[in-house]
Amino acid sequence: MSTQAPHNTLLIPGPIEFDDAVLQSMSHYAESHVAPGFVKVFGETITLTRKLFQSTNPSAQPFIIAGSGTLGWDLVSANLIEKGENALVLNTGYFGDSFGKCLETYGAQVTHLRAPIGDRPAFEEIEHALKQKPYKVITITHVDTSTGVLNDIKTIAQVVRRVSPNTLVVVDGVCSVGSEEIAFDEWDLDAVVTASQKAIGCPPGLSIVMCSGRAIQAATARKTPASAYYASIANWLPIMQNYENNKPSYFATPPTQLVHALHTTLSQITARPMAERFAIHVAASDRVKAAVAELGMTQVAPKPECQAHGMTAMYLPQGLVAPDVLPGLLKRGVIFAAGLHKEIAPKYIRFGHMGVSISDPNRNDVDKALAALKEALAEAKQAKGL
Amino acid sequence: MSTQAPHNTLLIPGPIEFDDAVLQSMSHYAESHVAPGFVKVFGETITLTRKLFQSTNPSAQPFIIAGSGTLGWDLVSANLIEKGENALVLNTGYFGDSFGKCLETYGAQVTHLRAPIGDRPAFEEIEHALKQKPYKVITITHVDTSTGVLNDIKTIAQVVRRVSPNTLVVVDGVCSVGSEEIAFDEWDLDAVVTASQKAIGCPPGLSIVMCSGRAIQAATARKTPASAYYASIANWLPIMQNYENNKPSYFATPPTQLVHALHTTLSQITARPMAERFAIHVAASDRVKAAVAELGMTQVAPKPECQAHGMTAMYLPQGLVAPDVLPGLLKRGVIFAAGLHKEIAPKYIRFGHMGVSISDPNRNDVDKALAALKEALAEAKQAKGL
Repeated sequence: MSTQAPHNTLLIPGPIEFDDAVLQSMSHYAESHVAPGFVKVFGETITLTRKLFQSTNPSAQPFIIAGSGTLGWDLVSANLIEKGENALVLNTGYFGDSFGKCLETYGAQVTHLRAPIGDRPAFEEIEHALKQKPYKVITITHVDTSTGVLNDIKTIAQVVRRVSPNTLVVVDGVCSVGSEEIAFDEWDLDAVVTASQKAIGCPPGLSIVMCSGRAIQAATARKTPASAYYASIANWLPIMQNYENNKPSYFATPPTQLVHALHTTLSQITARPMAERFAIHVAASDRVKAAVAELGMTQVAPKPECQAHGMTAMYLPQGLVAPDVLPGLLKRGVIFAAGLHKEIAPKYIRFGHMGVSISDPNRNDVDKALAALKEALAEAKQAKGL
Repeated sequence: MSTQAPHNTLLIPGPIEFDDAVLQSMSHYAESHVAPGFVKVFGETITLTRKLFQSTNPSAQPFIIAGSGTLGWDLVSANLIEKGENALVLNTGYFGDSFGKCLETYGAQVTHLRAPIGDRPAFEEIEHALKQKPYKVITITHVDTSTGVLNDIKTIAQVVRRVSPNTLVVVDGVCSVGSEEIAFDEWDLDAVVTASQKAIGCPPGLSIVMCSGRAIQAATARKTPASAYYASIANWLPIMQNYENNKPSYFATPPTQLVHALHTTLSQITARPMAERFAIHVAASDRVKAAVAELGMTQVAPKPECQAHGMTAMYLPQGLVAPDVLPGLLKRGVIFAAGLHKEIAPKYIRFGHMGVSISDPNRNDVDKALAALKEALAEAKQAKGL
């Protein structure tokens, strides 16, 4: 029996439904951010973040900072690249555009390699682009929350290392960390930017960034000082190292309750092999995608290899728009998200299937959602005389 | 009967003890950040923030952003001042030094007007400094958490308006908002930077910045673009305006649970006249300071007009250092903070007396703390043969 108040099931691509214990951690009593109890919990949380990324290389460093996922773009843009240096943005829509704007704010010269809606840049195109200029960073949206497009960051990292070995491989993993396979060390990634509220299953409010030794080196051996204060890797690095070594340290007050919640969810997630977690997400995704096809709908990302496993963006049947269907879902206790990609927004809806909604055997959120979707579509079609 | 687990009473200058209802709000079930329920709560929270600052001028704008209080310095430094412009920092210690570093990170030319430990810059010195150069901003630490020094921001703002009327008056109110009187419009302030976890009584994780119309104008009519993305006033302004007008809006995912908690505490705080709240803090502070004197101790801030009302920094009796006394307090269920000002750190301790610890008539935190302090001091003196 859940301890949460009755509510509609939140199945958007983040924030997601929470485990009871995670939410209870949010109500932790007041603690000093430098007292032994909290220092231990924060230090363990940093170590658990390494496990989340399947990383054992001590030169890699997780950062856990009060902020939204967006703050991670500032951490990358203000620390890993200097004014006038080149950045290649693999652009699959909304989030590539915004990451590009963030990079430009800090003085980077940004080149966008854009893919058509629902697709991703081909490896040959990426290789070709990398040969045109020396790029300090390449950024990839691992899962584009606006379209459900999945990028193959493992293969892209291989291409980068072959063609332009010094380019830092930066992954926007806000909508992928915890649901899509990531082997940070093995794939030789340099930075993965994420947030607490998606497949990690913690309430929003934490910016989480995993950096390689190569990225830390780039941030700390800059020709010019980092161009941000709160988003400065140099300012946070000793803090993260100290907490992980069980020493209190102060740069800015950490969000103690959110850190407790992150500790709880990461303890749950890493209690089993990560491969198992990814397989559960793949299985749930396959089930959702089969059901969507059975309902006569296509996905915004049509190619199977480009489809995320923690969400599905589906075009509505001809003649229907999102406001015809979302209220019917809500009436049945299910919340999906409207479209976000501005060129196609009214024509599609987004279903987030990650975290406890698919991993907790006591929940039947996916079955409930698919049944509600079927009924809401039929009702909407009838109302429109389709 | 509190719903919180039994714990030692946290009486540091933030984070502070929480009201049960505030902590319960932290466990709010998952919600979409753009769904009507949350949009209403966030919008109301922005409006309640105006009340907290006793502001009715519609051109003023509160910002509530996921982050620590430190992020507010970046908001000021990246938006209100441009590269090469002058900033005058009224420096009473640790936080003035850090705010200065933040301003320099974004290219400001910083002049520190330093006061001796425990004192504050005199009005004549401030007037003299303002006449030396055109300053774009002046920053004042309202209450210096490291020493308990209170600045008279009302009079300083008057001096600025008389001598250098275009200088933006920026207040670091992290340790003052909610415990010290602030009349934002009436005192003609331009920016007050604060955080959720001190006298506001919400868990840490929210950066709260109140800007005047003049500050918004400076931020949006810059000669050069703002030099931050996440900390950009231009990026957040339409979001705050939309939420307050009950319209969903997206720049970065707000920390929904923390916003609920802030809504709860601000509803409680603003349910009574702010003047009453400030008077309660003054009365509690007077009681603490009298007791400290009776125990033979002096304050780091010796002048009564320079003493904060939400905290007391006290020098320990000759021969004792913080590690002699803090464990004795902890043994009696009370947590004070060690010294923070590096030149005097071991010689003093800090007692935070703000929020529910002094305003909730069902709590007796101050009595408990003063009794524990008396016993811990006696015990420490005995152990040292003093």
